[in-house]
Amino acid sequence: MSKTIDSTPRADGFRMPAEFEKHTGTWILWPERPDNWRLGAKPAQHTFVNVAKAIAEFEPVTVGVSASQFQNARSMLPGEIRVVELSNNDSWIRDCGPTFVVNDKGEVRGIDWDFNAWGGLVNGLYFPWDQDDLVAQKVINIENVDRYKAPFVLEGGSIHTDGEGTLMTTEECLLDEGRNPDLTREEIEENLMEYLNVEKIIWLKNGVYNDETNGHVDNIVCFIRPGVVALTWTDDKNDPQYEISMDAYQRLSEATDAKGRKLEIHKITQPGPIFITKEESEGVDAIDGTLPREEGDRLAGSYVNFYIANKGIVVPVFDDPHDKAAVDTLKKLFPDRKVVTVKAREILLGGGNIHCITQQQP
Amino acid sequence: MSKTIDSTPRADGFRMPAEFEKHTGTWILWPERPDNWRLGAKPAQHTFVNVAKAIAEFEPVTVGVSASQFQNARSMLPGEIRVVELSNNDSWIRDCGPTFVVNDKGEVRGIDWDFNAWGGLVNGLYFPWDQDDLVAQKVINIENVDRYKAPFVLEGGSIHTDGEGTLMTTEECLLDEGRNPDLTREEIEENLMEYLNVEKIIWLKNGVYNDETNGHVDNIVCFIRPGVVALTWTDDKNDPQYEISMDAYQRLSEATDAKGRKLEIHKITQPGPIFITKEESEGVDAIDGTLPREEGDRLAGSYVNFYIANKGIVVPVFDDPHDKAAVDTLKKLFPDRKVVTVKAREILLGGGNIHCITQQQP
Repeated sequence: MSKTIDSTPRADGFRMPAEFEKHTGTWILWPERPDNWRLGAKPAQHTFVNVAKAIAEFEPVTVGVSASQFQNARSMLPGEIRVVELSNNDSWIRDCGPTFVVNDKGEVRGIDWDFNAWGGLVNGLYFPWDQDDLVAQKVINIENVDRYKAPFVLEGGSIHTDGEGTLMTTEECLLDEGRNPDLTREEIEENLMEYLNVEKIIWLKNGVYNDETNGHVDNIVCFIRPGVVALTWTDDKNDPQYEISMDAYQRLSEATDAKGRKLEIHKITQPGPIFITKEESEGVDAIDGTLPREEGDRLAGSYVNFYIANKGIVVPVFDDPHDKAAVDTLKKLFPDRKVVTVKAREILLGGGNIHCITQQQP
Repeated sequence: MSKTIDSTPRADGFRMPAEFEKHTGTWILWPERPDNWRLGAKPAQHTFVNVAKAIAEFEPVTVGVSASQFQNARSMLPGEIRVVELSNNDSWIRDCGPTFVVNDKGEVRGIDWDFNAWGGLVNGLYFPWDQDDLVAQKVINIENVDRYKAPFVLEGGSIHTDGEGTLMTTEECLLDEGRNPDLTREEIEENLMEYLNVEKIIWLKNGVYNDETNGHVDNIVCFIRPGVVALTWTDDKNDPQYEISMDAYQRLSEATDAKGRKLEIHKITQPGPIFITKEESEGVDAIDGTLPREEGDRLAGSYVNFYIANKGIVVPVFDDPHDKAAVDTLKKLFPDRKVVTVKAREILLGGGNIHCITQQQP
């Protein structure tokens, strides 16, 4: 039942559900590489445990971990969280994991995209990425579902869907020369429509300023429900994020979704700006070929990188003056879900946040 | 749901079902270590594929494999067989895997025994065995069942149960100084009764001649159904196996099971004797600390090391004159199951056979 199907989800009547649809569970990968996570990844591991526990309040959580960290992860995580061996090059299962699709009967299948560490030999973040590229297939096998092998590079964090035929993405990422240089914009759109079974693609120009993923959409904007989005924001005209968010706002304002609706846009002011400290930088191993973490580098902090679980919202916070407003906004936007926070600076230091380290399974 | 329960199966009303009771599936581990399996384990891998395919005719099969062999195993196995990452030191999941127990409601839990590679630093077969010792816990996590951690050394191949309160084992193995030297025979019996929920233990003296596991019971005798056993046999009085099988026959003849029944005993004449050839020996890496495979060594060949699947029996054969009689006997003993054969010399060369490389999950 883990066979690879020589077809596409659209042809078989499968579609990618929205994150706010019902999950059977959440997948997370365990952080460990010392050239990305400071102090041997120990602070990050504690934060990942907090994220896993927060989500486990709402739905089953599985944590994948390399053989060498299995016992440590198993002992740090509570017994109700499943821990499985899953080699990886780093812990971003949003991007290297499968994208699950469903049909009207509730059957689930997994899409296994090509993965090249956010840009391969052009501008990827580390080398090699061979174990990351097997994560989707391994998850699909463990879950005993059938598999589509998509013949192009895509990360889950570069797309958001509303479950009703609309997809949001960014030109900065999907048209970057490190992903699919041989595909035109139109061919990329066709692929997205064929594999995710969507009809309308809303293109933003850029992701969050200095986002090392080439501007993943999931760090700048997300669907709250069909027709309603949240956008990361700043009112500081001197911040390079200002122009990016303004452009996104304009495009979203002008867009209609697959059902012909105009979008309701909620601005969420960004934290910080947040910069890497000297102490934080010094805790990271320097390895040729891995993106360095240097003192003073600006981090792509965003509250929009929250995760939607069954009946719950798990939001990154930063001991920042903007935390409260962001959380209050999300409470209003999700009146039927419990909003919980996790102090997430240690995840941000590794290059992403709570949405990037999670993958929902419908 | 993979939590460790601080109790015992007996206390909670769980028991080990017999192998001939209904399975939800079978677990296998992929062979790879070149100091045990000749020619880089390639011939053994093909044989394991044949075993997995044979069992998959009757029930779902999962194959666990190290990260380095994942892609090879995935490509060699058909799509309906699930392949999951599972580090190990060798591929004997009968011994390092969990023993599953069930209650009357059909709930399943897994027992995680201590594992020390058949004798630890006293007379174990290789070093280290750290990854083997994690296999049971990892399988239990993947299957999302609760876990009992048994505080003593046991291999699944050293026990057989009839599902009705009777267990068979051997003194050669369970009383060996390499397993639980601090436990008396009575304490070992108490442990077996507590964890497997049995009332009657039938002790044979020895396993098959020259069996490197210290005489695992699953290579010499097994239950066909409650009250009925099959025993490996030879009529050659000059064969050291003769005295072993005679002694086992006598003990079984005198025994009664937990229900007070006398046992019906069916003799199955052994293959061979089978010896390692020069070519076979030369294909194995020589590593200090791993049991060598030397030309002329006698192998512990036995047809009793077959596997009972749902509606099927998977029997090792050896291109041996005794193959036909063994298969004919098993066909008579299992009139309601399909008896299929797999040429299994390559498994025998590694130190066991089909029963040793499988683990049923109720």
